[in-house]
Amino acid sequence: MEVRPGRPLDNAAAMIEHLRAARTDGADLVVFPEMAVPGYLIGDEWEHEAFLRECEECGEEVRAASEGITAVFGSVALDWQRRNEDGRVRKYNALFVAENGRWAGPACGPYPFVVKTLLPNYREFDDSRHFCDLRKLALEENQPVERLLAPVRTERFSLGCLLCEDAWDADYAVSPLAALSRHPVDLYVNINASPFTLGKNAKRHRLFSQWAARLARPLVYVNNVGIQNNGKTVFTFDGSSCVYDGRGRVLACGRAFEESADTAEIAPEEPFADGTPSAKDGVPEVYRAVHYGTRKFMELCGVRRVAVGVSGGIDSSVAAAVYSRILPPEDLLLVSMPGPFTSETTRRIAERLAARLGTGYVEVPIGESASLTRRQVNGLTVPGGNGRPQETLRIDPLLFENVQARDRSARVLAAVSAAFGGVFTCNANKSEATVGYTTLYGDLAGYFANLADLWKTEVYELARYLNREVLRGPGIPEEALRIAPSAELSPAQNVDEGKGDPLVYPYHDRLFASWVEWWNRTTPQEILEWYAAGELESKLGYEGSLTDLFPDPAAFVADLERWWDLYQGMGLAKRIQAPPVLALKRRAFGFDHRESQMGARYTRKYLALKERLLRGQPRGTSCADS
Amino acid sequence: MEVRPGRPLDNAAAMIEHLRAARTDGADLVVFPEMAVPGYLIGDEWEHEAFLRECEECGEEVRAASEGITAVFGSVALDWQRRNEDGRVRKYNALFVAENGRWAGPACGPYPFVVKTLLPNYREFDDSRHFCDLRKLALEENQPVERLLAPVRTERFSLGCLLCEDAWDADYAVSPLAALSRHPVDLYVNINASPFTLGKNAKRHRLFSQWAARLARPLVYVNNVGIQNNGKTVFTFDGSSCVYDGRGRVLACGRAFEESADTAEIAPEEPFADGTPSAKDGVPEVYRAVHYGTRKFMELCGVRRVAVGVSGGIDSSVAAAVYSRILPPEDLLLVSMPGPFTSETTRRIAERLAARLGTGYVEVPIGESASLTRRQVNGLTVPGGNGRPQETLRIDPLLFENVQARDRSARVLAAVSAAFGGVFTCNANKSEATVGYTTLYGDLAGYFANLADLWKTEVYELARYLNREVLRGPGIPEEALRIAPSAELSPAQNVDEGKGDPLVYPYHDRLFASWVEWWNRTTPQEILEWYAAGELESKLGYEGSLTDLFPDPAAFVADLERWWDLYQGMGLAKRIQAPPVLALKRRAFGFDHRESQMGARYTRKYLALKERLLRGQPRGTSCADS
Repeated sequence: MEVRPGRPLDNAAAMIEHLRAARTDGADLVVFPEMAVPGYLIGDEWEHEAFLRECEECGEEVRAASEGITAVFGSVALDWQRRNEDGRVRKYNALFVAENGRWAGPACGPYPFVVKTLLPNYREFDDSRHFCDLRKLALEENQPVERLLAPVRTERFSLGCLLCEDAWDADYAVSPLAALSRHPVDLYVNINASPFTLGKNAKRHRLFSQWAARLARPLVYVNNVGIQNNGKTVFTFDGSSCVYDGRGRVLACGRAFEESADTAEIAPEEPFADGTPSAKDGVPEVYRAVHYGTRKFMELCGVRRVAVGVSGGIDSSVAAAVYSRILPPEDLLLVSMPGPFTSETTRRIAERLAARLGTGYVEVPIGESASLTRRQVNGLTVPGGNGRPQETLRIDPLLFENVQARDRSARVLAAVSAAFGGVFTCNANKSEATVGYTTLYGDLAGYFANLADLWKTEVYELARYLNREVLRGPGIPEEALRIAPSAELSPAQNVDEGKGDPLVYPYHDRLFASWVEWWNRTTPQEILEWYAAGELESKLGYEGSLTDLFPDPAAFVADLERWWDLYQGMGLAKRIQAPPVLALKRRAFGFDHRESQMGARYTRKYLALKERLLRGQPRGTSCADS
Repeated sequence: MEVRPGRPLDNAAAMIEHLRAARTDGADLVVFPEMAVPGYLIGDEWEHEAFLRECEECGEEVRAASEGITAVFGSVALDWQRRNEDGRVRKYNALFVAENGRWAGPACGPYPFVVKTLLPNYREFDDSRHFCDLRKLALEENQPVERLLAPVRTERFSLGCLLCEDAWDADYAVSPLAALSRHPVDLYVNINASPFTLGKNAKRHRLFSQWAARLARPLVYVNNVGIQNNGKTVFTFDGSSCVYDGRGRVLACGRAFEESADTAEIAPEEPFADGTPSAKDGVPEVYRAVHYGTRKFMELCGVRRVAVGVSGGIDSSVAAAVYSRILPPEDLLLVSMPGPFTSETTRRIAERLAARLGTGYVEVPIGESASLTRRQVNGLTVPGGNGRPQETLRIDPLLFENVQARDRSARVLAAVSAAFGGVFTCNANKSEATVGYTTLYGDLAGYFANLADLWKTEVYELARYLNREVLRGPGIPEEALRIAPSAELSPAQNVDEGKGDPLVYPYHDRLFASWVEWWNRTTPQEILEWYAAGELESKLGYEGSLTDLFPDPAAFVADLERWWDLYQGMGLAKRIQAPPVLALKRRAFGFDHRESQMGARYTRKYLALKERLLRGQPRGTSCADS
């Protein structure tokens, strides 16, 4: 089901309706996701007593609606007599089983509900902030935690009940599944609120299939759809619920990003062949998540009309193309804002894009306003006095680039989109966002950054996929894919002369990914060690040669430090004021990748190695040799 | 000491220098703060192996420098053989004792360092994200946690060692101090990385004084100074380290927000009278934290020159006055940007403010640019086609207000401050930030929002304090304190006619504080229940009468819902893109008060009560009656 975060009344009403329909269909057991009543990523809403009481009431209403059927669902469970360690009321992330209007709880333990044992506290997860886990409860109760991990015996089934992380026990001292398997269990049920991350589903499928086979019991994995957010970071939930038989084979599988009531006959002879999750995610899954996440975020914010500033470049073209698959053409407006350095080439691409997508298109030039700003500020005199000398202000060329970028977003797009009755988009990609190659209140402005978890090279892949599989026929003009990526804010960024961004995306995207997305995230120290050992290309998976990019170690180091300084410096300062980001992969900016402004930092080892290299040690000599 | 987050080399060098000086002074024991080597609020920097290894090395260097002295300090401790529950290397928030070049660890337990037992996971704290606590370690070791809580016996002392939260055990099942007190202890040492929060110091002082008296032993409380941040939220650390004797009396106390090496003779006859922490924080402490936090944040970001957009209103006047106490007059520029609705009154106040503060002052009018934007967008035609009808855009008066606000910040201030070689400030207060009564990319823009944790009424208090105690003589023009608070963006906001903001600050500030800052944060349900019972004024501490503000329940409810909708809707959307906020009190926006975009929400109980009230039930009748 789609869970609406912070809306227990809506969620409970949907659940009760699902129960009614399932009963009519003759189902025995209905399984809803984790935190189906309150939602999961709801910030500090957990501190509102009125909200918590309403969640309790809604849970009771679902229980009352379980006549003639068994319902399993997740919600917050309260113990108003105990305290959490923050001094607030005791809260559990809990699984409830209701049957024939009554609660059924685990055989052991103080509560008629199942308490989550393993609480994740990494990436976007903060479970320990609000919930007490079964391990702490066991300590309080002076019981071994394994004793509290007993199945729920209803009149119909013995259910091995788990919540999400409980099954991902590899790095924990406790294995809830192992503990449950010491009892007779008919069926395992794992309820989840598990955000989409590229590649996660295949891993998840392997895990649960193996668990079912190992336990020799059917297993139901249920996840919600919808979007939920941490303010800065917006997560999609793809559902993709699955039922496995006791040999680990898929009996039924819901479609990704779709609400559906899927019924499976547990333990038939032959497993379903259909709907088996694909082994590997790729561009189609990225597109689906971008499309779904954007559509749902618009719904959440009540956005009905959208303006996209189109430059003729690839990012804005992809953004426009994605929105053209969500909105009717009359509600999407493409805005071209040619400035002093805009080429006829890109202006034409922008115009052609609008024609191909069939949307409205306007041109609002920024030349006059940018000149006015220059006129007003350049030569402006700050009179002296009180011992202060007189001073005259100057707009240098770099500052004039930023003036143009801000003029486009904060002046034109903000006004045009509001007059159009809508919002404007932020088309930034992850490469720009990482190093702040973008202007604050300029191209980094907008209501939502739905491409900001994709490297520039991935934006190109998405563009090709859109043209090939989604838009077909006339899509993004081919020229947008061919021209040099460029901001066109100065003569040095003339696309017609093949000039543009200072980033060599095939290399820098991989370098930045190693800083941000790798499990063992790198720092300049590892990068320089690999460079010195001649291994950097293979470590990063860069197919070109670094000697083509950087003639000598000095050039390599200068580039590395340039971008690292920006990543930890201005890039971060800009990210703090950036729009919400749609999370697609590991370590989206915001709550999934937490950062502190501390300025750029280099270890002593890095500095020593750099000194050696710049003194002329040849590349290819391992630093272990010296 | 001042701890520089993410800079182990700098911190270790400072510690070694302190040890050298202390040895010369004949000190026996030197105590440094929690996480003195790595810093504490450093985001996910904990995942960099190169950083962790450097922290280890730096710790070894401090140990080596402990010849002839005992050093206690906090750092991250690693166990490279074990894993945390997130699968990453095992990390502890640890206290190290080094004496004569050797480590001294607790009598029991697997490590030569003390592991933090109680990990806070509320407000800005996320300890469980990165650290394993002593309770989990005890489970792994199959030992009761109390057994691992033994003193550290050095050649000189038996030290009862604690880390910060370990002493705040009221809501935990374990009391580290109680466990330690079962052993002979000469001295208790509590090391901290505890951010400043208005009013916290008095509470802390009470707690530690009571502990020392109860344990009948001297106790040393050490906290760092400096600032550290979570990206969005910037925290000051005030130090205020204290030594208590065995009767709970203060022997020595460091000054707030100052690095100093304070020496105390433990167990003398008479306690110090000086330096006893004040019982209650007030405006002086707020000013000190604003001044300190702003100065340190500028240092951190390398900001040397600042432009403040001055409107003649109170917020920008206070901002300018604070910066005038940090920067020399030639590095502070006040920028007045009169627009079509700016009064001569406020323009004059702004000019006078600059003259009084002795800073530079320029006027850059926005009329021409705002007109240009109106001319370019108003009447702009989106041609029809593909079945789309032609459409003509209009700039309505509200939109024109936003055009002016954005023109000031994103066009003028951004360019002027950059040409001045500096940044520009965000002068938003917490009242505006709560309900988004501010323009994104307009007055909500800037490099830092140092007043955004203060309600409007608190900004007035700060203004009066600045004039009386800090600036003395000619300070903020009195008129700025007298005129109606107004954005001056439309004829309806004419200050000369006493018109201005739609907020009645003495009431709304208290209402909003109940939503954001109260321990039991309210929702419209509680507010309406109290209103219905005639108790709202006293519950909020509002000294006026609500019937003067709202003639009937319908007016009251309309006002309540207007601001609640904005608080949970557009206000939040704007906060996500707001500058970093300086935290001063409980629940600063950002990491201290986590929010999810979910739209405005009302409980069923609220809706039912509202319906009853609007049907005419008189105010003063308790809802329990019905």
